[in-house]
Amino acid sequence: MDHNLEQTVVLLSRTPATLNVLLRDLPDSWTLRYEGPNTWSVFDVIGHLIHGERTDWLPRAKRILQFGESKPFDPFDRFAQERESKGKSLSQLLDEFTALRSENLAELASMKITREDLDRRGVHPALGGVTLSQLLATWAVHDLTHIHQISRIMSYQYRDAVGPWSKFLGVLHCTGHGA
Amino acid sequence: MDHNLEQTVVLLSRTPATLNVLLRDLPDSWTLRYEGPNTWSVFDVIGHLIHGERTDWLPRAKRILQFGESKPFDPFDRFAQERESKGKSLSQLLDEFTALRSENLAELASMKITREDLDRRGVHPALGGVTLSQLLATWAVHDLTHIHQISRIMSYQYRDAVGPWSKFLGVLHCTGHGA
Repeated sequence: MDHNLEQTVVLLSRTPATLNVLLRDLPDSWTLRYEGPNTWSVFDVIGHLIHGERTDWLPRAKRILQFGESKPFDPFDRFAQERESKGKSLSQLLDEFTALRSENLAELASMKITREDLDRRGVHPALGGVTLSQLLATWAVHDLTHIHQISRIMSYQYRDAVGPWSKFLGVLHCTGHGA
Repeated sequence: MDHNLEQTVVLLSRTPATLNVLLRDLPDSWTLRYEGPNTWSVFDVIGHLIHGERTDWLPRAKRILQFGESKPFDPFDRFAQERESKGKSLSQLLDEFTALRSENLAELASMKITREDLDRRGVHPALGGVTLSQLLATWAVHDLTHIHQISRIMSYQYRDAVGPWSKFLGVLHCTGHGA
């Protein structure tokens, strides 16, 4: 389907509560373990979502509206959460993500983006030309790709515990598709 | 990690609320669309989870405790939801799933499963010999595999809307791994 800003916002507004219900106060064995070397834990993923709220989505939307194609987006730091999450608890990260998302959606609403605005173009440092519409649709699918990843990281911890059922459980055969 | 019944129950108890927060009252465009012919919508997935609560997990656990390897599990009908969900709304299905999961977890608690019980064996009609421990771990990972699937089905609806970002969004490259 075509991008629909209202339906994007509906999704974006639910992600913090979804992650809260799924994750808050879970035992560390579900939230601090990885899928092997150089992979992320659930804790790392929430830190990454926070960094996106601070530096990626809304700042890039404003960049498009202010500068169009004359000033590319700043590159996104995919490893910032290693620094920024240090010493925090998962509950603190969930609170931080919830507050930032709520502020960002309030600010997005105040921008009163029009149909014409959605077609405005900016420049991604790796992907080249993109539209505001694509950026906002990606914000929502980015949430979903990390819900997808979180379900996979958690499943991985039981990869042996399920025994022969492993072959029926698609999530255990997912490698993340390089994302 | 090894199977831990307490940590399995913690996950199982959260899934209904997670799905409620993520899905209830979403526009139909997120919940009634598929990934192409012969695939499931989010609505279908919730129906499938309901059928599992009724016929799969707890009935199979009881079968193991009562009959061990002398009586294999009944086969699971992966398409029952086509019949059983007919005429219902997504909200009704979410309510039904929530109630059944809650009843099943209460019954599971009342069974007072011991460390020795977890090693008891039953027979799966396709997989052969399995343990009660593996069955219960699979119940939890089965929830996660369907959260994984739901995030993928929803993302698929925006596969074009995200434009060139598609290549960075792993969930858009997931084919479900045959599950």
